[in-house]
Amino acid sequence: MPRIAFLGPPGTFTEQATRALTADFDAELVPSDTVPLALEAVRSEDVLAAGVPMENSVEGAVSATLDGLVAGEPLTAVAETVLPIRFHVLVRPGTSSEQVGSVISHPHALAQVRSWLGRYLPRAEVLTASSTAAAASAVQAGNADAAVAAPVAVDHYPDLEALATDIADVGDAQTRFLLVRRPGVLPQPTGADRTSIAVVAHDEVGALAEVLSELSLRGINLSRIESRPTKDRLGEYRFFFDFDGHVADARIGDALTGLRRRCGEVRFLGSYPKSDRSPPSVRPMASEQAFQMSTEWLAEVRAGRLA
Amino acid sequence: MPRIAFLGPPGTFTEQATRALTADFDAELVPSDTVPLALEAVRSEDVLAAGVPMENSVEGAVSATLDGLVAGEPLTAVAETVLPIRFHVLVRPGTSSEQVGSVISHPHALAQVRSWLGRYLPRAEVLTASSTAAAASAVQAGNADAAVAAPVAVDHYPDLEALATDIADVGDAQTRFLLVRRPGVLPQPTGADRTSIAVVAHDEVGALAEVLSELSLRGINLSRIESRPTKDRLGEYRFFFDFDGHVADARIGDALTGLRRRCGEVRFLGSYPKSDRSPPSVRPMASEQAFQMSTEWLAEVRAGRLA
Repeated sequence: MPRIAFLGPPGTFTEQATRALTADFDAELVPSDTVPLALEAVRSEDVLAAGVPMENSVEGAVSATLDGLVAGEPLTAVAETVLPIRFHVLVRPGTSSEQVGSVISHPHALAQVRSWLGRYLPRAEVLTASSTAAAASAVQAGNADAAVAAPVAVDHYPDLEALATDIADVGDAQTRFLLVRRPGVLPQPTGADRTSIAVVAHDEVGALAEVLSELSLRGINLSRIESRPTKDRLGEYRFFFDFDGHVADARIGDALTGLRRRCGEVRFLGSYPKSDRSPPSVRPMASEQAFQMSTEWLAEVRAGRLA
Repeated sequence: MPRIAFLGPPGTFTEQATRALTADFDAELVPSDTVPLALEAVRSEDVLAAGVPMENSVEGAVSATLDGLVAGEPLTAVAETVLPIRFHVLVRPGTSSEQVGSVISHPHALAQVRSWLGRYLPRAEVLTASSTAAAASAVQAGNADAAVAAPVAVDHYPDLEALATDIADVGDAQTRFLLVRRPGVLPQPTGADRTSIAVVAHDEVGALAEVLSELSLRGINLSRIESRPTKDRLGEYRFFFDFDGHVADARIGDALTGLRRRCGEVRFLGSYPKSDRSPPSVRPMASEQAFQMSTEWLAEVRAGRLA
């Protein structure tokens, strides 16, 4: 049974996401303490793949994942999933709202349920834990009365029960997770795929604009751009791009060759089905047919048969 | 012996240029009254090729040539030559400056020697002819005293002699001429080639900027751009581009496929050695090696062997 690492401990959102990402096959899920450790477990072949958080609609990019993906041997994403970030409030059985004197969770989770706590547990002391799962553990051990935890935590702390479910101050908060592994045969194109890359542009005037033009000229819909310092040189940045399409698509491949010629470094971070399965809107000039037609036309021109 | 049309009558600059363009092989030069007729003679296979003026450093583009190249079946240029435009003043033998009561030429030629005439033939009446060769003919017939003509006219009017040679108000005026023929095997790349194309961009915001980006992103040095109305629709233009490189070059081919996908019409007007033999400055990212490297890299990425 393949071993799959996830950002632990058991009972986190990442475990929930990794279970969704590996739903198609039997897998043994192995918790890692940090994202870099989860990725290192993949690189060292200790595990087949790892489930890691990529971005949160409230908090933004997960820097540890971006940095970890480019910090060592290549890794590529083969699947993504998006989880709504909603929390359960777990208590020891029989505990009522009035009996909750303290509430515990990871600071990020507490930040996302601040209003709810103010309204429903206004008198509870707020304590922090290293993860939402650790918070549940603290409640089970009797060190706090209520934990703000991921819904999946219920499976790991069966002695606890939910005082409230699906709470969140921002109703539609979501986190996107990737399943990453060592390079290998790519997922088949589905017609609704996403490609992720990281590039280091030469430090020249207009370099980033030219990088973006390489994508836009091929009619590629850029859905996300993040910049991170390369750590090599102050003022030098690595750009992370997500865009619609699969590297097997002509327009994506053509753009990547352009970036490869232009940029000091191009990392392919994977082509994988989009979780929402929404097909991209492809301009006629960027279609597979257009690329095939233009390639055939050029061959005829070069042979002197067309002009 | 192949027949080559030129913009006549005999004794014009275009004849001189066409002789230079056909210096490598035996050819019978056939005068045409207009550029469109010269091009039509090529299309109808009455002649193998035609010598036509493309642009003048003083007067600008030769519209009749631009329009004629795209007005019918495809034609492609296979050679260019650049002539310095300097004039001879031809008279009947024994005529002195003081005896010149009238001077005749094509209006364009007269415009380019106006200062010289004012200084050396200030009292002569100025007459116009349909070409510089026709002016020489008029002098030979006794209808004028002096003709401002192309140096080559001397060969056709041996009864005349030069009163002055190599005159011009602007010392470095030049005209560029092309030898065009029906599509066929292209001239071999020489490392110092020029490519000419004509494109009709879709009438959208930013369309021309995107067309130019297709060239600049491939590190292509655009040496000339002209726009001409398409005559189909008011406000729709056809753009004529000249740039360094041969269609056999990877960067040129790649750019042309991009334009072919993007533009309503792309005409390949030829790849041919530059008359000045100056090699282009090619950025590393646009080199043949860069294209080959990026193509091989993409194949490895698509196969899952690289990331």
